[in-house]
Amino acid sequence: MAKDFVKEITNMDEDFARWYTDVVTKADLIDYSSVRGSMIIRPYGYSLWENIKNELDFRIKETSHENVYMPLFIPESLLQKEKDHIEGFAPEVAWVTHGGSEELVERLCVRPTSEVLFCEHYKNIIHSYRDLPKLYNQWSNVVRWEKTTRPFLRTLEFLWQEGHTCHATDEEAHEETTKMLEVYADVLENVLAIPVLKGQKTEKEKFAGAKFTYTVESLMHDGKALQSATSHHLGDGFAKAFGIQFSDQTGELQYVHQTSWGFTTRVIGAMIMVHGDNRGLIIPPRVAPTQVMIVPIAQHKEGVLDFAYHLKATLSKIARVGIDASDKKPGWKFNEHEMKGIPLRLEVGPKDIENKQVVLVRRDTGEKTFVPMAELETKLPQMLEDIQQNLYERARELREQKTTVATNMDEFKGNLESNPGFIKAMWCGDKDCEDQIKGQTSATSRCIPFEQEKVSSNCVCCGKEAEKLVYWAKAY
Amino acid sequence: MAKDFVKEITNMDEDFARWYTDVVTKADLIDYSSVRGSMIIRPYGYSLWENIKNELDFRIKETSHENVYMPLFIPESLLQKEKDHIEGFAPEVAWVTHGGSEELVERLCVRPTSEVLFCEHYKNIIHSYRDLPKLYNQWSNVVRWEKTTRPFLRTLEFLWQEGHTCHATDEEAHEETTKMLEVYADVLENVLAIPVLKGQKTEKEKFAGAKFTYTVESLMHDGKALQSATSHHLGDGFAKAFGIQFSDQTGELQYVHQTSWGFTTRVIGAMIMVHGDNRGLIIPPRVAPTQVMIVPIAQHKEGVLDFAYHLKATLSKIARVGIDASDKKPGWKFNEHEMKGIPLRLEVGPKDIENKQVVLVRRDTGEKTFVPMAELETKLPQMLEDIQQNLYERARELREQKTTVATNMDEFKGNLESNPGFIKAMWCGDKDCEDQIKGQTSATSRCIPFEQEKVSSNCVCCGKEAEKLVYWAKAY
Repeated sequence: MAKDFVKEITNMDEDFARWYTDVVTKADLIDYSSVRGSMIIRPYGYSLWENIKNELDFRIKETSHENVYMPLFIPESLLQKEKDHIEGFAPEVAWVTHGGSEELVERLCVRPTSEVLFCEHYKNIIHSYRDLPKLYNQWSNVVRWEKTTRPFLRTLEFLWQEGHTCHATDEEAHEETTKMLEVYADVLENVLAIPVLKGQKTEKEKFAGAKFTYTVESLMHDGKALQSATSHHLGDGFAKAFGIQFSDQTGELQYVHQTSWGFTTRVIGAMIMVHGDNRGLIIPPRVAPTQVMIVPIAQHKEGVLDFAYHLKATLSKIARVGIDASDKKPGWKFNEHEMKGIPLRLEVGPKDIENKQVVLVRRDTGEKTFVPMAELETKLPQMLEDIQQNLYERARELREQKTTVATNMDEFKGNLESNPGFIKAMWCGDKDCEDQIKGQTSATSRCIPFEQEKVSSNCVCCGKEAEKLVYWAKAY
Repeated sequence: MAKDFVKEITNMDEDFARWYTDVVTKADLIDYSSVRGSMIIRPYGYSLWENIKNELDFRIKETSHENVYMPLFIPESLLQKEKDHIEGFAPEVAWVTHGGSEELVERLCVRPTSEVLFCEHYKNIIHSYRDLPKLYNQWSNVVRWEKTTRPFLRTLEFLWQEGHTCHATDEEAHEETTKMLEVYADVLENVLAIPVLKGQKTEKEKFAGAKFTYTVESLMHDGKALQSATSHHLGDGFAKAFGIQFSDQTGELQYVHQTSWGFTTRVIGAMIMVHGDNRGLIIPPRVAPTQVMIVPIAQHKEGVLDFAYHLKATLSKIARVGIDASDKKPGWKFNEHEMKGIPLRLEVGPKDIENKQVVLVRRDTGEKTFVPMAELETKLPQMLEDIQQNLYERARELREQKTTVATNMDEFKGNLESNPGFIKAMWCGDKDCEDQIKGQTSATSRCIPFEQEKVSSNCVCCGKEAEKLVYWAKAY
């Protein structure tokens, strides 16, 4: 029975892309619609996003940021104020040209990101050093006109938060950029159990309009990298384009220094591709909509269902507990909840009730444990914690296995072939080399890691002397 | 000092519309941008919305609904599937015609509401009676191309939740329509302290595509009504247009019966216009971002600030407490926090510390009470509760004062002139009379209240025999 069900999803080692699509649909995370490149986030997927969002929102507020809401539309002239920014985004925006039956005098773009709206507002409300810093954040939808799309990873519309801050000095803005990258790393590592690599994007890969971009990169099961969140130091470029000035303590006019940082529904894709297996999703307990699913065994026998519901009521105080009392067969239920990645299954039948015990089955290892009823309220949270830690450790080990060193292009290509993943290689800093590497291998520079090592003395591409270690990978 | 500050907002009895605009901007709820008809919801306004949203979201989940997320864009052909619906919405939608530099083959409308997207999805996922009911909700932004806009009340884009449900029978859908109207009434009355009138919209005023629409109507300080939330019984019209069918327990194919219901940022406008006064906003304690603002008196004196911060730490366990330790003068602070409608001000100075007491000043009544420190943790929540109740009672009394009866059009017009508000009058049920009343007075039918009375025997307009009591008013 289990076998039949498992057949329904493609084996991840045979076709990872199809495995992914199978999982997001069969685990009821998303559905497609007639809107090209967009997705419907179904209750299970949305509840997962709500849990992730709550964890991040809490940290954003703890670090003194305030939530606001900006308009969805941006007049074309406003978008054009910062040159690099418009150049970067123009090819991928959706344009509103008509309202009702009237043609608009000026086209409106559907926000791909909201820098320019925040800038316009900041110009209005910032006058003195007393008004600084301004630490704003927005939870919203944004639209980018992508040609090729995949659920969560790249969609025409996605959900995210975008932070936008103004500071009196460049140093303060730099500190903020770092701080928010750390907040992202915290959520990814400690909530989503995804180990991340922290570093700086190259000039080529940085955000359009930024001074520099920090990134947290993670590695998927198939050896491809995924940019999981970014934090940009905007310098005073936008401030100059928009005239955002304040009078400092000496009364002199100064431009503000800005940052922006974003975290999107994309991380759900990362979570799937880091933890999932051939039975489906595996959701880390800290964000799992249901942490424990109770499956009554021989539920038609007297007392079993009552007991199961009683257990649910008791355990709901310490965990998010579901119960599957449907008339499906237990084996079918097991498979369904495994597909959905529920961290723990609790089985309880007539014999267990007699023996005052239950069976706990871990999704990550398949391990089965008989737990005496009296110990359940202690053991269950411990086991959830163990699963959380194990998922992180497993992902970290996989990343290590898939991280290699290359000192020349032959090694680089060989590694990509034999053991796709992160390639650590020195880089001279020249954009030509970056382009060549991409051209020859389709790997891109993921980041210049904060923790630098010297794996050789020469650029992996041109062979010139090189000081910078870069992580390279094919990426989503 | 207080006077100077108060001058800044228009007197509400002189020009209510300007008073409103003054309040929403001076209390830092919103700001304007270069996006016509849209608003920026500033931190104070957004935090208010978050509190309201949390209260409603909790109730939506408590009644077994699940949150989902649908695409922002709707292909034109999909919008056109239900005839009444497209007729109602076409004049007020924004159209996306270009993606990047390409013209689209089919225009996309920016969702004004999401019935058609839900219907398309429901068709995919509903097959059997076992799949019913489906109780979905979405929190999102929507766009309606309005000509004349006012912050919160009518904006090009607004935030809302939209519930969309499918049921096996018409009765169940009817029950759902009623249940969600009661949820809205609960949030409005018990959270926002806004008394509501519950009833049914006339055919003319019902939602485009609905079988009937239920509404909760409230009355503003200036005697104008505001539709505060609506709940629609959609019947099986959409189901037939979209082919949403299920096989019932006998194996026969049946169409589902649907509902939809919405609640928007508009209620913030209602809250302002029901409770506000000439000193600014008054926010009901249950949704106030800050419930108590501590203002230290003579804060330069030793121990005052320490004591104030200590108080804040202690009281934060039982209420949302702020502290204003800025270098502004106390009078200025008083005015600012009154403008922002913070329910309670707590003053504490050297003498109070000596006497082991603080001063509590109510925003709603201006009443000043000396409270011994030992009683503070009991008194403070009581006082917040008193304010909540008093705001509701005050609003209810005002509504009663402004609710009159008319038996003919002369009385109708006279009442509107002398005491604008709700007019209770009988109606024959004829759309012509409804149109005439609107034409002659600009008052519209607000609803056919669930609690019917017979205030006369004849239609207020045509004089024919009439059975239905209708509430009429000029409305926002």
